[in-house]
Amino acid sequence: MKVGVIGLGLIGGSMAIDLKRKGFAQEVLGVEAEPLNAAAAQKIGLADRVVPLQECVEESDLVVLAVPVGAAVKMLPEILDIFASQKAAEKIVIDVCSTKEHLSRAVKYHKARKQYVATHPMAGTEYSGPWAAMPGLFDGHACIICDAEESSPKAVHTVEQLYDTLNMRTIYMNSSNHDVHTAYVSHISHVTSFALALTVLDKEKDEKHIFDLASGGFSSTVRLAKSSPDMWIPILSQNRDNVLQVMDTYIDKMNAFRKAIAEGDEEAVRTLIEDANRIRRIIR
Amino acid sequence: MKVGVIGLGLIGGSMAIDLKRKGFAQEVLGVEAEPLNAAAAQKIGLADRVVPLQECVEESDLVVLAVPVGAAVKMLPEILDIFASQKAAEKIVIDVCSTKEHLSRAVKYHKARKQYVATHPMAGTEYSGPWAAMPGLFDGHACIICDAEESSPKAVHTVEQLYDTLNMRTIYMNSSNHDVHTAYVSHISHVTSFALALTVLDKEKDEKHIFDLASGGFSSTVRLAKSSPDMWIPILSQNRDNVLQVMDTYIDKMNAFRKAIAEGDEEAVRTLIEDANRIRRIIR
Repeated sequence: MKVGVIGLGLIGGSMAIDLKRKGFAQEVLGVEAEPLNAAAAQKIGLADRVVPLQECVEESDLVVLAVPVGAAVKMLPEILDIFASQKAAEKIVIDVCSTKEHLSRAVKYHKARKQYVATHPMAGTEYSGPWAAMPGLFDGHACIICDAEESSPKAVHTVEQLYDTLNMRTIYMNSSNHDVHTAYVSHISHVTSFALALTVLDKEKDEKHIFDLASGGFSSTVRLAKSSPDMWIPILSQNRDNVLQVMDTYIDKMNAFRKAIAEGDEEAVRTLIEDANRIRRIIR
Repeated sequence: MKVGVIGLGLIGGSMAIDLKRKGFAQEVLGVEAEPLNAAAAQKIGLADRVVPLQECVEESDLVVLAVPVGAAVKMLPEILDIFASQKAAEKIVIDVCSTKEHLSRAVKYHKARKQYVATHPMAGTEYSGPWAAMPGLFDGHACIICDAEESSPKAVHTVEQLYDTLNMRTIYMNSSNHDVHTAYVSHISHVTSFALALTVLDKEKDEKHIFDLASGGFSSTVRLAKSSPDMWIPILSQNRDNVLQVMDTYIDKMNAFRKAIAEGDEEAVRTLIEDANRIRRIIR
């Protein structure tokens, strides 16, 4: 199969590496709009060829749309347009974005809708760009497939094979539930990390102290604050209502903590910490 | 040298392992008040002998006080009392607690004050108890030595050798600055993790979703929420003013984020994320 990857960053680049290495793709065509990233992707060898978008979509059997979700919403209908104009009813496009409702709405009535499979591989690091791509990024993680009933069963089956190749376990959900649950479990932890970095950089005027005193605990809690604005601005914008809801709950919990500490109410602090400790049962 | 370790948990147990293994201690005497933990420590072999407190302090050349800081504040003067009653002016006691001002005040006028060296090895995991102890826990991390001028130079020198044995680099600070900086860099990240766990457990009623959707990012951000209340209640209580101050800044940052997202002000969101990204330059 010929696989086209649009966006040779962390996710697209890592997918290109493993799909080729594991034989799912005989050839990988890459598209990369940013000239510096395109040159790097070519130098690293993420794709067999780096080509223009139109050529990639026309030539590939399966297209992976791996750009930030703001751009993906515009590009997805254009890709389906090319499929339709080619009368290539067997071709497939997937996205790998972290929000789904806007994408789902953007192509809901497209005549080639069935050729699109909405997917969200839940893997990544805080780094981005072609330099961040790596083999094995997806190993053992979960991948959500959204609105599978809107896609052709054959397309879904091929995409399941793709994620099986990447050693991912698939979970099925509709777009709307996807966006609620990812706000609860993933998006909020990025916002809390950004806020933590802002706080520490604000309070601790001497960066040397941060460097010296940062234990493993602080580093792991703040690590997501390195994440790229280009990726996160459209996610927070498209998933605004769910994100605001979970932020409000979070701010309530912080205020409850603040009150218990301020009042010296050690029993209340204990209850809060013990309740939080329940996460031990769930997260390794 | 004979080293006594009071509290054979994560920190004390890990120190016992490495001080013995690396030859700094010829013999390690352990004290563990909790019977189950004492039995476990003995079974794991963290100390050569598990003995009562009085015996440990009387026999040891250097005592490591590795209990939660609430208990440490009570025990430290008692240990110095034993040193004084023994007329053992060469013996040393160190603590390894995360707050220092209360400890410092508790022994400020003790006649054996010079035999106490206040230390804070900045290493750990989210686990506790003798089962959490491990070799190499301290390797490459920083250790703060507080108020070194209050201790005898010889005692400080011995303690520097101890931390050198553990491969730690030493930093010097007074107690008051220590408590400010650890609130800014370490204590706040525990509070934000506890609040994150509370939020996700509250919003996400179905724990299976948390398990399925937890990516590496969420797991690392929430990991400190597994930390023990017995350790953290006295830290948050003793360092209350500094912790409240940094929590207030944190809540302000969250509210700024909330406002920018709610208003759809993508430029403001970008500025916040880019400011947070400065942490990249400091944290690996």
